[in-house]
Amino acid sequence: MTRSFTPDDTASYPRAHVVDVALRDGSTVRVRPVGAEDRPAIVEFLDALSPQSIAFRFFGQVDLGWAADWSVDVDYADRYALVASTGAEHEIVAHGAYIRTGEDRAEVAFTVAERWQGRGIATIMLAHLAAAAEQHGIAVFSAQVLPGNHHMIGVFRDSGFPVAQRSREGVVEVELPTSRSPHTRERFERREHIAAVAAVERFLQPRTVAVIGASPRRGTIGGEILRNLRGYGFDGTVYAVNRRVRTIAGRKAHASVSALPETVDLAVIAVPAAGVCAVARECAAAGVRGLLVISAGFAESGGEGAERQRELLSICREGGMRLIGPNCLGVINTSPDVRLNATFAERPPPPGPIGFLSQSGGLGIAIIEAASRMGLGLSSFVSIGNKADVSGNDLLEYWEQDPGTSVLLLYLESFGNPRRFARIARRVAAVKPIVAVKSGRSAAGARASASHTGALLSASDVTVDALFRQAGVIRTDTMQELFDIGALLAAQPVPAGARVAIVTNAGGPGIMCADACQAAGLDVVELSADLRARLARFLAPEASLSNPVDMIATAPAASYRRVIEALVRERACDAIVAIFVPPLLTRAEDVARELAAAAAKAGAVTLASVFMNSEGAPPAAEGAARIPSFGFPEDAARALGAAARYGSWRA
Amino acid sequence: MTRSFTPDDTASYPRAHVVDVALRDGSTVRVRPVGAEDRPAIVEFLDALSPQSIAFRFFGQVDLGWAADWSVDVDYADRYALVASTGAEHEIVAHGAYIRTGEDRAEVAFTVAERWQGRGIATIMLAHLAAAAEQHGIAVFSAQVLPGNHHMIGVFRDSGFPVAQRSREGVVEVELPTSRSPHTRERFERREHIAAVAAVERFLQPRTVAVIGASPRRGTIGGEILRNLRGYGFDGTVYAVNRRVRTIAGRKAHASVSALPETVDLAVIAVPAAGVCAVARECAAAGVRGLLVISAGFAESGGEGAERQRELLSICREGGMRLIGPNCLGVINTSPDVRLNATFAERPPPPGPIGFLSQSGGLGIAIIEAASRMGLGLSSFVSIGNKADVSGNDLLEYWEQDPGTSVLLLYLESFGNPRRFARIARRVAAVKPIVAVKSGRSAAGARASASHTGALLSASDVTVDALFRQAGVIRTDTMQELFDIGALLAAQPVPAGARVAIVTNAGGPGIMCADACQAAGLDVVELSADLRARLARFLAPEASLSNPVDMIATAPAASYRRVIEALVRERACDAIVAIFVPPLLTRAEDVARELAAAAAKAGAVTLASVFMNSEGAPPAAEGAARIPSFGFPEDAARALGAAARYGSWRA
Repeated sequence: MTRSFTPDDTASYPRAHVVDVALRDGSTVRVRPVGAEDRPAIVEFLDALSPQSIAFRFFGQVDLGWAADWSVDVDYADRYALVASTGAEHEIVAHGAYIRTGEDRAEVAFTVAERWQGRGIATIMLAHLAAAAEQHGIAVFSAQVLPGNHHMIGVFRDSGFPVAQRSREGVVEVELPTSRSPHTRERFERREHIAAVAAVERFLQPRTVAVIGASPRRGTIGGEILRNLRGYGFDGTVYAVNRRVRTIAGRKAHASVSALPETVDLAVIAVPAAGVCAVARECAAAGVRGLLVISAGFAESGGEGAERQRELLSICREGGMRLIGPNCLGVINTSPDVRLNATFAERPPPPGPIGFLSQSGGLGIAIIEAASRMGLGLSSFVSIGNKADVSGNDLLEYWEQDPGTSVLLLYLESFGNPRRFARIARRVAAVKPIVAVKSGRSAAGARASASHTGALLSASDVTVDALFRQAGVIRTDTMQELFDIGALLAAQPVPAGARVAIVTNAGGPGIMCADACQAAGLDVVELSADLRARLARFLAPEASLSNPVDMIATAPAASYRRVIEALVRERACDAIVAIFVPPLLTRAEDVARELAAAAAKAGAVTLASVFMNSEGAPPAAEGAARIPSFGFPEDAARALGAAARYGSWRA
Repeated sequence: MTRSFTPDDTASYPRAHVVDVALRDGSTVRVRPVGAEDRPAIVEFLDALSPQSIAFRFFGQVDLGWAADWSVDVDYADRYALVASTGAEHEIVAHGAYIRTGEDRAEVAFTVAERWQGRGIATIMLAHLAAAAEQHGIAVFSAQVLPGNHHMIGVFRDSGFPVAQRSREGVVEVELPTSRSPHTRERFERREHIAAVAAVERFLQPRTVAVIGASPRRGTIGGEILRNLRGYGFDGTVYAVNRRVRTIAGRKAHASVSALPETVDLAVIAVPAAGVCAVARECAAAGVRGLLVISAGFAESGGEGAERQRELLSICREGGMRLIGPNCLGVINTSPDVRLNATFAERPPPPGPIGFLSQSGGLGIAIIEAASRMGLGLSSFVSIGNKADVSGNDLLEYWEQDPGTSVLLLYLESFGNPRRFARIARRVAAVKPIVAVKSGRSAAGARASASHTGALLSASDVTVDALFRQAGVIRTDTMQELFDIGALLAAQPVPAGARVAIVTNAGGPGIMCADACQAAGLDVVELSADLRARLARFLAPEASLSNPVDMIATAPAASYRRVIEALVRERACDAIVAIFVPPLLTRAEDVARELAAAAAKAGAVTLASVFMNSEGAPPAAEGAARIPSFGFPEDAARALGAAARYGSWRA
């Protein structure tokens, strides 16, 4: 918390109750207990209110001086007031207070500046006041609202609190408990969700983007980001901003963000750290809504950098801007409607259903490169760096509602708010699988991660394990497993159970797979006599009809399909691993085609394949169901095991 | 044991003492207690001996009938005799006996047919007689040898037993204890070693090879093996044998092995199972020394197949042939002096220092393909299939002395002789690392492996773990780890300790690596203030000088070399992992070159690299020291951890 925000330094001031809250439109305000120093700002606030607002608040016209005195007269127990402030001048845009009226009762009232109404500020203040009141033994809030004050009646009605309401003598009397019910909590989460989604949308769905620090030179961050934005087919306008040059790659460059012909949604900042705050101020003045700060040299580098990061965040808060970064790789949205590549990675990943979050920028590059190499399709990629503002939790909220994303992969180094993570992750994981690799497990790793993305608080590893387990998050030990499980769940249904069958044309890999399946907690089921008899009709006499089904090397490609069809028809298992070793006559392409045909009719059965030829799996046939392919049988088994455990958590 | 070999079915006959033993030249004989039924064969044996041999044995000329009676007059306690037999007719080629002469003493004597002398038969018989004598309370053997009987004097002297020898009245008197000393054991192992190496050489270093069942058609086993043998540049003669066709691919094909213009060393048999024994008999008659039986349909398919395998083995024993298989993929020797590819795998692996053994043929194909894909160089590859004769243990003995092999990778499903494995492996592992993946861990896997290579006895997994640990064998859970550790040890020294340093140009992967190193039992050491000061001189101010050393994205390629040189000079660690993420200006090729330069001066420090660009590691510069490259930091850490554990076992 920067000093400038907290007006009172007395011991009684409840510093812990200073919070930045995200509003419905993705902007933020600071909500905090009022202090005596706020009186001048309160006067300005009251002065700017319309006569009607004053009347609604004070039931008539009042002396401003008296109202201001009344507004800052608090003891943080029986008399408690909050203000919401914004902007460089810490302009006050809302005030809310309760005053104790009985042993366990208090009266509550709010005022919101007209142009800030409709963004949910009063509702948020009500919740914070209720929490404070409950702490001080107040169980019930009452409020008197004039019938014409539709805004305030709406605030109470939509708050999520169970509100009792009656009209008496021309006034609407409202009563509500101060304790949160499950319903209140849900409403709260709903509002938080809307705010987070709106914030992330500023970055993943902008219509106009400016690159500040755009460079005509290749091999520079500003040069590559501009090139990527222009080369990837972004469905909007991209502006280059450079203080010194007038054209970049034959197109106009602008001297500053204020010189642009229109207000941009998103500014990508790639200037040296020392210049970032000045640029951010210009952006705030120009009405930019989101800052993506690539530059390093902030909290991750300690001392001066940490101070610089605090200043940057203040500028964003004051300017109503949201911030991703600093010290990050950028964001990618592969959606054909957007096609935004605001990173300096050499090539974007292929499009697909996976949302990928990386706390580390460097690992982000590796992730994008690996996704390209493995053909893993991403819907969006976000590198959150030092996460001074937008966090991994916000991304979870975004992906939860993004129809283009069905699987979430996370690389995390730290949790800003583990409780919120657990709450959101549990809700999201009930619908979309979340796979996470959390680093900083070891002492050495934790030491390094503190200096890396400024993650000061690494939760202990045991705590993280418990957190993930309860939230239904699939934790992996390695990046390879992260990718493997991601690839499986991106293409195939979550296994409905742990029963697995293996079909192979070579014994050894089948045995390896059976071992690995059992080690991964899967059940290598024995097949019924009926089923074995059915398989015997078309497999070679030397084939092994137990599980693994070893069709031997002479099996034609079609046998894969026929065995899978028989297993599916019999409901013999929840998942099937098909293993192919190149024998003499059967071609990998044919096996891939037959597997795709089988997958199209496999219903809820999860399919995985292992192509042990030197080229790996052939590309799946056009339009066919996709079956993920693994390098070795053990990889398939491990991914299936993790997916099945997740399935049983979700069931 | 087949019925035909054991002449006596009486209860007293010590069946357990029937053994097949490998001789110095790689051939085998059966050594077994004599029985009354052997008398006619004994007569033939004695009749064929030269008068001198008779004189050496019986100290003069004797009546053959009396000598034969004497030779089979045994009670398996005070009078005990062994014979060595060979060939289809169970021809007896040696006889040895002891007769009790006192409470704890016996006299011992041998006769070996002239043309079988010099192969070590008498020495082996002496050892077996000594073991039997010891069981019956006899502590000392004595023998009377005529001074001219150099052969027999040599037998005693080279036996490994501590022999006391004196001449008296024109006779050499020899005395030795019947109990084995460490020295005796060592001599024994030495003989066993020589026999095993000679056997494997028949398969890996033949000068002439015949493919029986060679086919003019592509896509057949016989067709592909012939093609591979001819296409890979074999430094010897290859003959095609096919009953029906006269030419294959423009070259002469022969109707049978007996029709070949010369005796071949190795016959590769790829005819249907039902025809294998007939072909094997022809081979025996034609003097073939090794049979590589690709055909399946033997013990792995149960009942009839098991009987067929017994018959095949008998034919080999009788014909003095050694056998690899049946039910195998074949063998490869990549040595430029040999270039033998007697498999039907599509492409041979690149040459290199790894000896690879696969019990499974199908997995063998996958192994060869994966080796090609990963650029893992093999010296030789052997698929031992049902290992009716030549076993994994024999291969260990071969690779132990093969100068072209420095790392052994094994895929095992079962142990024929776990004790022998432990003994040999421990000796080999003290010099060359052995990495093994043993499948059949799970119930399902064990079930499958029994039907796969006829491995009836799967040792319990806990036993296997203990066996491997004691023998210094690195056991891996997965094929990927097998390859990873193999790649590391093929190129780099075994780590001298557990201290690891990480040098990276991106924080996140460095943290992942530190975590994984710690999990793998490595020590991510803190760097001394001196060393940090030295690094600070050339790294960026934002770089992190602790371990991992995060040089940040702007680090030039040369920084990798300079950091490694500083670490090596300071003796700061035993192993170094270099991680590269593609930043904007530094190229992977340059980093690879600098790493190679650093490796050339790294001495005993083990180096590994992780190239996290989409193409993976660039090929190392020509002639430069090779640094193995891994897909993700965790893979490198795991491989290093296993190698360091092995190093501490070996130390």
